Amino acid sequence: MPIWPLKAGEIAELIDGTVEGDASVSVTDLVGIAEAGPEHLTFAADARRAKSLEQSQAGAAIVAEEPKESEKTLIRVDDVQGALVKLLAAIAPPEDVPAEGVDPAASVSPEAEVAADARIGPGVVVSAGATVAARAVLCAGALVGPKARIGENTRLAEGVVIGGRCVVGNRVRIGPNSVIGSDGFGYYMVNGAHHLVPHAGNVVIEDDVEIGACTCVDRAKFGSTRIGAGTKIDNLVQIAHNVRIGRGCLLTGQVGLAGSAQLGDYVVLGGNAGVRDNVSLGDGVQCAAYSAVAADVPAGEKVAGIPAGPAREQIRIVTAQAKLPELMKRLRELEAKVRTLESSEDH
Amino acid sequence: MPIWPLKAGEIAELIDGTVEGDASVSVTDLVGIAEAGPEHLTFAADARRAKSLEQSQAGAAIVAEEPKESEKTLIRVDDVQGALVKLLAAIAPPEDVPAEGVDPAASVSPEAEVAADARIGPGVVVSAGATVAARAVLCAGALVGPKARIGENTRLAEGVVIGGRCVVGNRVRIGPNSVIGSDGFGYYMVNGAHHLVPHAGNVVIEDDVEIGACTCVDRAKFGSTRIGAGTKIDNLVQIAHNVRIGRGCLLTGQVGLAGSAQLGDYVVLGGNAGVRDNVSLGDGVQCAAYSAVAADVPAGEKVAGIPAGPAREQIRIVTAQAKLPELMKRLRELEAKVRTLESSEDH
Amino acid sequence: MPIWPLKAGEIAELIDGTVEGDASVSVTDLVGIAEAGPEHLTFAADARRAKSLEQSQAGAAIVAEEPKESEKTLIRVDDVQGALVKLLAAIAPPEDVPAEGVDPAASVSPEAEVAADARIGPGVVVSAGATVAARAVLCAGALVGPKARIGENTRLAEGVVIGGRCVVGNRVRIGPNSVIGSDGFGYYMVNGAHHLVPHAGNVVIEDDVEIGACTCVDRAKFGSTRIGAGTKIDNLVQIAHNVRIGRGCLLTGQVGLAGSAQLGDYVVLGGNAGVRDNVSLGDGVQCAAYSAVAADVPAGEKVAGIPAGPAREQIRIVTAQAKLPELMKRLRELEAKVRTLESSEDH
Repeated sequence: MPIWPLKAGEIAELIDGTVEGDASVSVTDLVGIAEAGPEHLTFAADARRAKSLEQSQAGAAIVAEEPKESEKTLIRVDDVQGALVKLLAAIAPPEDVPAEGVDPAASVSPEAEVAADARIGPGVVVSAGATVAARAVLCAGALVGPKARIGENTRLAEGVVIGGRCVVGNRVRIGPNSVIGSDGFGYYMVNGAHHLVPHAGNVVIEDDVEIGACTCVDRAKFGSTRIGAGTKIDNLVQIAHNVRIGRGCLLTGQVGLAGSAQLGDYVVLGGNAGVRDNVSLGDGVQCAAYSAVAADVPAGEKVAGIPAGPAREQIRIVTAQAKLPELMKRLRELEAKVRTLESSEDH
Repeated sequence: MPIWPLKAGEIAELIDGTVEGDASVSVTDLVGIAEAGPEHLTFAADARRAKSLEQSQAGAAIVAEEPKESEKTLIRVDDVQGALVKLLAAIAPPEDVPAEGVDPAASVSPEAEVAADARIGPGVVVSAGATVAARAVLCAGALVGPKARIGENTRLAEGVVIGGRCVVGNRVRIGPNSVIGSDGFGYYMVNGAHHLVPHAGNVVIEDDVEIGACTCVDRAKFGSTRIGAGTKIDNLVQIAHNVRIGRGCLLTGQVGLAGSAQLGDYVVLGGNAGVRDNVSLGDGVQCAAYSAVAADVPAGEKVAGIPAGPAREQIRIVTAQAKLPELMKRLRELEAKVRTLESSEDH
Repeated sequence: MPIWPLKAGEIAELIDGTVEGDASVSVTDLVGIAEAGPEHLTFAADARRAKSLEQSQAGAAIVAEEPKESEKTLIRVDDVQGALVKLLAAIAPPEDVPAEGVDPAASVSPEAEVAADARIGPGVVVSAGATVAARAVLCAGALVGPKARIGENTRLAEGVVIGGRCVVGNRVRIGPNSVIGSDGFGYYMVNGAHHLVPHAGNVVIEDDVEIGACTCVDRAKFGSTRIGAGTKIDNLVQIAHNVRIGRGCLLTGQVGLAGSAQLGDYVVLGGNAGVRDNVSLGDGVQCAAYSAVAADVPAGEKVAGIPAGPAREQIRIVTAQAKLPELMKRLRELEAKVRTLESSEDH
């Protein structure tokens, strides 16, 4: 693993770039343009940032087409974002994992089945009937309920709770203190008292799903709450019972999906967006941050607003709203003029 | 416990229904109308769904009045939702609980008082002076602070934190990783620095309250933050210091109540709704999802919007907003016409 | 520590106040004006509350200038809020902390460095290379990753997760089940599949920061996600990768800051407010609850709304919105009148 400081020439090698300027310039860290000093590497991902590069104090910069030239040392690449990913992958320290085998401070039921090369940290609980597949990593304090299944190469971070009978696929990552398989929020009333609907179902998380920290996925009343392969979910997201999410979706922080909401493939939800219960979003739907979707949205549409409507219209509405006070004034003036016209008419 | 597959006749017995058609049809699971195959049981809870039943591939269906007849096997009941609850209660596997007694991997203070038939899981901590009553269930990793009291038949799920001196009633359920009794967000400034107001109070959770996962209830500055009997609270809800909630309320996911907010009985808050500090909602108030209540609301009212107003008006405002761009255009046209009228007047 | 019941005279001594009336009146608790009975102490922090004091049943009250006189026992002070803080500080029970040293049910790596007078509770994990400074308190179930640094007098509440290489300053308080240093939500797409951007950075939490329960702070892609000294953060707040927060800020419950958002000093965000990625808020900016900031805000401004604009304009817009249905009606009437005028013109 390469470690800072790095020379421009070494960095260029890591990211398949070409040095323009002094390849021996040494930098101690990767930093945004505004904060970079002469000892730092920075990057310009677009034309606007390429322009502001000249004002930056950075010692070296990763760039694509722009700027054409500079007094700084440039490391030129085809794709700045791609180059950053390569660089970060090269310099990122290896992920923190418990040692192979079962930590002495873990509680593994004798009726659980744990692969020999799984990594089970201190404070972990694996309950009766649960299975943990090859190379799975259960960080400190992860709790796995009865008959739950954890797939190969899957990583449960610290404090994750997996409820009984839930199924977690392969290469899944779940962030610290997230909860999979809690009871859903379903009640029926008898004589003025709310009674919990029994939640007989489970949660199924397909392969390559990634979930952030403190996110909650409720188990189904019947069948499964399901998260499709390759979907990525941020922190503090609420996914209610019987929700079904397709493949490759992106759910940003603090999103909320109410009961039985259904998402197609590659749906994108901005931060704090929500979807009403039983509402369906087609493939590729995009919902702006802070939008609240209250009715079905056809595939490919972009929506915004509370309640959400087509994003293009929403922009026009917001623009018009900003002019509302002025509009009220113009209406009053017009009313006065019309009164004048009417009264002169009367004469 | 009956286990799938089940025959239509067996299901009818579980839910007090009557079979119309082949009582020997066997089904393997309960599934929504759209996804049901010939091996599945489904249900039609309203007239619209009863209609779509004919297109469904389901092998059998639970129905009420509609449809009058069908080629499928029908299990006819008075109340479909009630029947589903009965069915789910019958087929739901028994809840996951630790064994009776104290798990060897738990830490119970010698100065705590724990009922002999309580169930204390691995990793649980019960601090000095705390009491855990009969048949209480503390799942793996639940943490109970000093002098806290946990009532009879109460269930703390995995990773729940109960702060010192908090009081949890009987038959209460608290979901995984929820936090009861953290310090509130109250600061006073001295010489440009924020200082935490000491939180001398606690949280009192009355009988039959249920709380979801990753929900936070802050302790009071003085006295108690109080949640009334039979109130149900979803996941990721924020309840600030000195909030008082009445009986039988429903707080949906990601709701937020600011400091000293006060809710009457049977108040309902939709997802992501919020209430400003010191604001009171009367009995039976209903707040739409994504509403922000900034002023007191009298009993029985329905509110919506940011800031929240009467729901009926809010619908009219939202409808009018959608017409705003058109309205701007009409205003401009009118102004032109009035100018023309005025100029012809001048002549 | 003084314990209820307390005499008015004793209370006056604790808060540097003067008794007017019977100094021997004994009260059992501090309670809000509306709920107070004759056995309670209450307080009137402003003129409106001073007025409602006469209707209150309270046995005694802390007041400033108003009311001038009362039949109740008054404890008169210069600053009611300050007096309450003094009183709460006096009566608050000492904070719950584990015993000095390492609890036998904790897992401390032999390669970690833990101060002798630190307090390490049951279920705590301190990983290899981590350091825990003097008088730090790690409550039950707190998990500290490899090479993380915990400062002096810092308190990690129950279930807190500190990721590897994160740095927590001195006198910091982090609430139960909060997560510091989870991976950020950054993905790049290769052949239709989302791939996580490696997160090579960490989180730096400066001195005197306080964070509530179930709050998430993601680690940086490169460099550090940084929270400035003396900033206070409430429950269920989402802070994304590479965010930089200045000194003395206040972030209320359920706030969300997207990637690389930047806050100056003394910024205040109301509940559920959000800031878009890469957006900067200058020193002293105030964002209303439920506002969504989508563009840079200069120092000292107050903003509100979705999307957020200047708060003063926003109030005018909201006021105008409430009149929208009426405005539509007036526009229609005006159109009719102008038609009439035009037709009479034609004759």
